[in-house]
Amino acid sequence: MFEIKAKDGKGRVGVLKTRHGDVKTPALMPVIHPRKQVIDVAKYGADIVITNAYLIYKDEDLKKKAIDEGLHKLINFDGPVMTDSGSFQLSVYGDVEITNKEVIEFQELIKTDIGTSLDIPTAPFVEREKAESDMEITIERAREAINYKKEQNMEMLLNSVVQGSTFLDLRRECARELSKLDADLYPIGAVVPLMESYHYRDLVDVVMNTMKDLSDTVPRHLMGAGHPMIFALCVAMGCDLFDSAAYILYAEDDRLLSTRGTFKLENLQEMPCSCEVCTSYTPDDLRAMPKEKRRDLIAQHNLHVSFAELRLIRQAIYDGNLMELVEERCRAHPALLEAQRQLGNYAEDLEKYDPRSKKSAFFYTGPESLLRPEVLRHMQKLREMPKKRDLVILPPTRKPYSKFISGKLGEFYVYGEEREIDLDNADFMVMDIPFGLIPLEIDEVYPLSQSDAPKTRDVDSIEFIEDFINEFGEYYEQVLIHSRIINDLDSDLYVKYSLSDDIRYKKDDVKKVKAIADYQFGNGAGDALFTGNINIEKSKKTGKIRHIYDGKVLIVNMRASDSYLILSKEGARRLHNATQYPKNRVVVNKDSEPFALDGKSVFCKFVVECDENIRAKDEVLIVNEEDKLLAYGKAMLGACEIEQFKTGQAIKTRKGMKK
Amino acid sequence: MFEIKAKDGKGRVGVLKTRHGDVKTPALMPVIHPRKQVIDVAKYGADIVITNAYLIYKDEDLKKKAIDEGLHKLINFDGPVMTDSGSFQLSVYGDVEITNKEVIEFQELIKTDIGTSLDIPTAPFVEREKAESDMEITIERAREAINYKKEQNMEMLLNSVVQGSTFLDLRRECARELSKLDADLYPIGAVVPLMESYHYRDLVDVVMNTMKDLSDTVPRHLMGAGHPMIFALCVAMGCDLFDSAAYILYAEDDRLLSTRGTFKLENLQEMPCSCEVCTSYTPDDLRAMPKEKRRDLIAQHNLHVSFAELRLIRQAIYDGNLMELVEERCRAHPALLEAQRQLGNYAEDLEKYDPRSKKSAFFYTGPESLLRPEVLRHMQKLREMPKKRDLVILPPTRKPYSKFISGKLGEFYVYGEEREIDLDNADFMVMDIPFGLIPLEIDEVYPLSQSDAPKTRDVDSIEFIEDFINEFGEYYEQVLIHSRIINDLDSDLYVKYSLSDDIRYKKDDVKKVKAIADYQFGNGAGDALFTGNINIEKSKKTGKIRHIYDGKVLIVNMRASDSYLILSKEGARRLHNATQYPKNRVVVNKDSEPFALDGKSVFCKFVVECDENIRAKDEVLIVNEEDKLLAYGKAMLGACEIEQFKTGQAIKTRKGMKK
Repeated sequence: MFEIKAKDGKGRVGVLKTRHGDVKTPALMPVIHPRKQVIDVAKYGADIVITNAYLIYKDEDLKKKAIDEGLHKLINFDGPVMTDSGSFQLSVYGDVEITNKEVIEFQELIKTDIGTSLDIPTAPFVEREKAESDMEITIERAREAINYKKEQNMEMLLNSVVQGSTFLDLRRECARELSKLDADLYPIGAVVPLMESYHYRDLVDVVMNTMKDLSDTVPRHLMGAGHPMIFALCVAMGCDLFDSAAYILYAEDDRLLSTRGTFKLENLQEMPCSCEVCTSYTPDDLRAMPKEKRRDLIAQHNLHVSFAELRLIRQAIYDGNLMELVEERCRAHPALLEAQRQLGNYAEDLEKYDPRSKKSAFFYTGPESLLRPEVLRHMQKLREMPKKRDLVILPPTRKPYSKFISGKLGEFYVYGEEREIDLDNADFMVMDIPFGLIPLEIDEVYPLSQSDAPKTRDVDSIEFIEDFINEFGEYYEQVLIHSRIINDLDSDLYVKYSLSDDIRYKKDDVKKVKAIADYQFGNGAGDALFTGNINIEKSKKTGKIRHIYDGKVLIVNMRASDSYLILSKEGARRLHNATQYPKNRVVVNKDSEPFALDGKSVFCKFVVECDENIRAKDEVLIVNEEDKLLAYGKAMLGACEIEQFKTGQAIKTRKGMKK
Repeated sequence: MFEIKAKDGKGRVGVLKTRHGDVKTPALMPVIHPRKQVIDVAKYGADIVITNAYLIYKDEDLKKKAIDEGLHKLINFDGPVMTDSGSFQLSVYGDVEITNKEVIEFQELIKTDIGTSLDIPTAPFVEREKAESDMEITIERAREAINYKKEQNMEMLLNSVVQGSTFLDLRRECARELSKLDADLYPIGAVVPLMESYHYRDLVDVVMNTMKDLSDTVPRHLMGAGHPMIFALCVAMGCDLFDSAAYILYAEDDRLLSTRGTFKLENLQEMPCSCEVCTSYTPDDLRAMPKEKRRDLIAQHNLHVSFAELRLIRQAIYDGNLMELVEERCRAHPALLEAQRQLGNYAEDLEKYDPRSKKSAFFYTGPESLLRPEVLRHMQKLREMPKKRDLVILPPTRKPYSKFISGKLGEFYVYGEEREIDLDNADFMVMDIPFGLIPLEIDEVYPLSQSDAPKTRDVDSIEFIEDFINEFGEYYEQVLIHSRIINDLDSDLYVKYSLSDDIRYKKDDVKKVKAIADYQFGNGAGDALFTGNINIEKSKKTGKIRHIYDGKVLIVNMRASDSYLILSKEGARRLHNATQYPKNRVVVNKDSEPFALDGKSVFCKFVVECDENIRAKDEVLIVNEEDKLLAYGKAMLGACEIEQFKTGQAIKTRKGMKK
C-alpha cells in the first residue's frame, strides 16, 4: 500500500497505492465540496482530493448520484478520493444521523478510495475525562470499522484517526492501540484549533508523541493542515498527507497563502510569488475584478504555492536538507520558531530515522541546529569510542581539518594532571560548531567535514561546546587546549603548558582507517578489519584514500563523498568474525537465505531481527538466524522501519557470499 | 529623477524616471547581449535592461545599426536601457580600444537611457596602492564624464561607479568624492568576485561602508548581483538596482536559481517553485528536451523567481518587515548568515533610516534580531529618559503588559541599597525579549507591544538582557527584581526583599501619556503638553486612550495602531514652546513660509535644517529660520534623507498655523 522512496529524518517521500492510482507523498488533498467544485484542482497539481461522505449521505440528490454513478463521477475527479465520515459535523453539532457501520458501508458503496470511521474529534485543552472517553469510542469504532471491512471484504482503504486532545499520554495510547489494527492510514485528528491559535509548540508535542507509537508503515495524515507555512515542519515530524479547504476559504476572504504567512489582498501592492496568477495580474487588477473571478484566481495562487512547497519539501528530502528548510520556514513567525525549538527536544526520536549520510552538507542556521539528530549522534559516538590518556584540542581550520594541520601546533594550555605528553597516547580533536569535538582521524566522515557554520558564533553554540568539552574532558587524565581556543573562550581555568613545542599531530593512514571503521561499525572493528599486510591505495588526483587491501585482497573501499567504508567480501567476513550478533547485522529468515546468498536484495518482510543501531545508508551484514554470513549491503531504511515494514526493500545487497 | 515611495531601514521602494519610462526599484536589469536576445525578458517582468556599449562600439554592424536606428531598436526593447562602458573588458583584457570621452559620446549617440563612464574595476584583496590609483582614475573619469555631459548638454543619465576594492576607507573616500558630482546613479563596482566566492561578509563591509558616504538621493546599483538569494540582504543595505546575466548563464549550465540557492537540473526530482515552467514540466521533461529549448525554459524560471523575489521585497518594505525577510533568506547558507551577523555591526547606520513606526509587528527570528535598529533605538531612549529613585522589574505577561498587570505583584529580590520602596518614586518595567526593559507607561508604543518572540529563549537573548539590566540598574539606587526573573536568570547576586507585599503598580493615565510624550518628543515634553485641566477620553470599545484635552481644547490624539501621539494645533504650540530649537523641528526657508502656514506639504528642497533625530513617520513641527511655528505634520523621510533630497515630499503637513 505504502512504500518509502527517500527519507530525511522522519520526513519521507513515499508512494501510496490506491485503486485510482498512486499518490506521491507528502501530498496535499484539497477539500472538494460534493456539490460545488469551483476550481479544477487537478489542473493545479492535485493528485488526490478529499470530500465529505456524510454531506453526500445527508443530501438525497447527491446520495442517489453517488450510489448510481460513483463518487468520482459525482465530484468529477478521476484520481484517488478520500472521504471523511461526518466526525467534523459531530464535533460541531454534537450529533450526526448516521452510525459508524452505516458510514463505512456507505463509503464502500460509493466507491471511495479511502474511507474513514466515525471518530470523535476532541478539542485541545479539554477535561481529561472527556478526552479519555472520546478516545475509547474512537478506538472502538476504528476496530469495528476494520472488522466490518474484513467481514464484508471491502476494497476501500481505511483511515483510523488518532485522537486524545492535548494529553500526550492519551495520544500515545491511542496511537499504540490503533497501530495494532490493520488500518491503511493514520490521520492525526483535532489539531486544527492548535493551528488556528498559533499553538504550534503544542502541535509539535501532540504530533511527536503520536509518532512515538504510530506505525511507520502507513501514511500519517495531519487532518485539516493546509497552510504551506507549516508543511515543512510537519513533514519533518513524519506527516505524509495534508488536507485543507484553506485554498478556497482564504480565497473567498481575499487572502493569499504563502510560506511566509498570509497576505490580505487589501494590503498588497505587489503580487508575492512566481505563479501564473502573480505574474499575470497586479493586486489592483484583482481588486477591480468581480468577486467570483478574483476568488478563483486567488484559489489558483493558493494551490500553486501549496503544491510548489510540497515539491520543494520532497526535493529537500531527496537532497537531505529538510531540516535546513524547516529552520528557514520557521522564521516566518515566532510561534513557529518556538515550535522548531520544541522539536529539538525530540532529537532522539528523529535520530532513529535519520540517514547516516546525505547528499547535502549540514548547514548551521542558528542555535536550533545544535539539536539536530546528526549532532546528537556524533556526540554519542564520541562518548562510546575508546579513549587515549590525553586529549589535545585544536582550533578549527579549513575543512577537512586534517589536511590543513601539520608541523608545530603552537601554544597550549593544560587542564588536569600536568605531565609530559605522550603523543602516541593522545587523541587529537578539533573544536568546531556544531559538532563540538572532531577527532582528526575521522574528520572527513559525513557530516563532520560536509558541514558549514557562520564564523561569528552565537553564545548558544559557544556554551554548547564549552559544556561538551567540560563533560568530555573527564574521560582524560590531561586535556591540552590550544591557546587560540582559550582566548576565544575567555576562560582562566587553564594554565599555560610549558612543553607546547613538542606537540605535533602525526598523520597515520592506518590509524585513520581504523578510527573510521570504529566510528562506523563500533569499537574494535578497525583492528579486526585491517590486519595483515595493510596496503592503502589513494586517488592520484585528490590524494584521498580509495582502497584498502591486505596484500592483494581488497578489504574495503572508501567512498569519496562521505568517507564511509564500503565492505568487500573479505571485509564483510572480517567484520562478521569480529563483532557480536546482532551488531551490524540484518537477520533474514530461512526462506530468503538462498536469495541473499545469491546477492539478491533483502525485502523487509524477510527480516526477522536487526541491530537497532542500523540507520538508512549504513553498510550492514546479512546473516541467517544461526548468524551465518549470507551477504552484505546497504540499508535503505533505519532499524525501526525495517522491523515494522512488511513491504519494500530493506537492504540493497552489494554481494552474496555464494558468488 | 529618483523618488522614494516607501522605506524600511535602508531599504526603499523608489521610482527612477528615464526618458523611456519609469522604473520601480528595487529592480533587476537582465543583461542583454547586443547581438543575440534569446529571451524576451520584458515578457517575464523586466522593466529595464542593461547591455554593453563597448561591445556594440567594437562591432561594425552593431555600431552602424545602433547609430542609425538607436540602441532600443538594436536590442528590441522599448523600456529604459542602461549601458556599461567596457570597464569589464578592461578588467579582463587589461586594455580597451576606447577612451572615456569616446564611450560617453557613443552612448549618448546611440540614445542609451543611462550611460557609464570608463571606470577601473579593482578586484577584491589587491595591493592597496593599486586600489588607490585605480580609484583615482575612476573618480577622475567620472568627473570628466559629468563635465563632458554638461558641456555637450547630453540627455542621458550618468552612472558614476564606486570602486576601492576591499579597502573600506577607499570605498568611503570614493563614495564621498563621487557624491560631490552630479551623477544620476551610483553603481557599486567589482563586487562579483566577493559574491562568487561566498565572501558575503566582506560584501556587507564594502556595501555598508560605501553607503556611509554615498548620497541617498540617487539609486545605487550593485553591479553584477543577480542571484535572488542575496537580493533581500542587499536591498536592506540600500541597494536599488541589480543586474545580471545569471538568469541565462545559469540556464546554459542547466542550473535553476532560487532564493534558497542554486539547483542543478541533474539533481532535481521535483521542480522547485510555483512558476509556469515549474508547474508545466517535470525535471525529466526538461532533461529530455533539446538543449536550446531547455535553456530557454530554465532562463524563464530564473527570471520568474528573480522578479517574484523583488516583488516580495518591495511588499516587505511596504509592510515594514524587510529585516524579517532578510533574516529568513540568510538561513539559505552559513556564509549569508555570517553576512547577516556582520550587518548587525552597522545597526547605528541602519537606525538613522528606519521609520519610527511600521505596519508589521517586530518578529524575533534569532540572536540576529537583537541587533535590529528598533532594539538599539529603544535602549538608547531608555538611557536618555528621566529616572526615578528605584527600579522595579517584572516578568513578561501577555501584551500589552500594562493591561495584564494588577494587584499584588508577588515576591521580589533586591539589588543595591536595601530600603523601603517609595512606589511614587519607582519606575516599573517589564523584562522581555528583545527590548530588554519596557517601562509600563509606554508599553503600548510601537514596537514594544507590536512584537513577538519565541517563549523558549536562546542564550544570546538571555545574556543580552542580563547585560542590559546590569548596565541600566546603575542608574537607580535600588533595583527590585521579580522572583520569577531571578529563577529564570539563575543568579545569586540578589537577596529576597522583605517588603514584597507592598509592591503594586498604580496605573495612572496622566503619567502614561506624559511618559509616551517624553519617549516620543524628548524629556519634558509630557509636562509641557499636558498641563491645565487634563481630560482623557478613551475608546468605549477597546478602552484605549484616544484623545487628550485641556478642558475642551484638544492637545493630542493617540493613534490606536502604535500609540504614538498626534499633535493638534494646541499640542504643536505647547511642544514648540517647551522644546529648544531645532528639537522636533523641520526648518523651512523664507519662500515656502506662506505655503506651510496654509497647511501645504513641505518638499525637501525647501528644508534648510532639521533635527537630526527625526525619523520617517515622526510627528514634527515646521518652523521658519526664526523658529516661528508655521505648521506641524508627519515626516515622510528621516533627517539625513530630508537634508540630502532636492525633490519629493519631506513632511506631510497636518495643519498650518494660519488656519
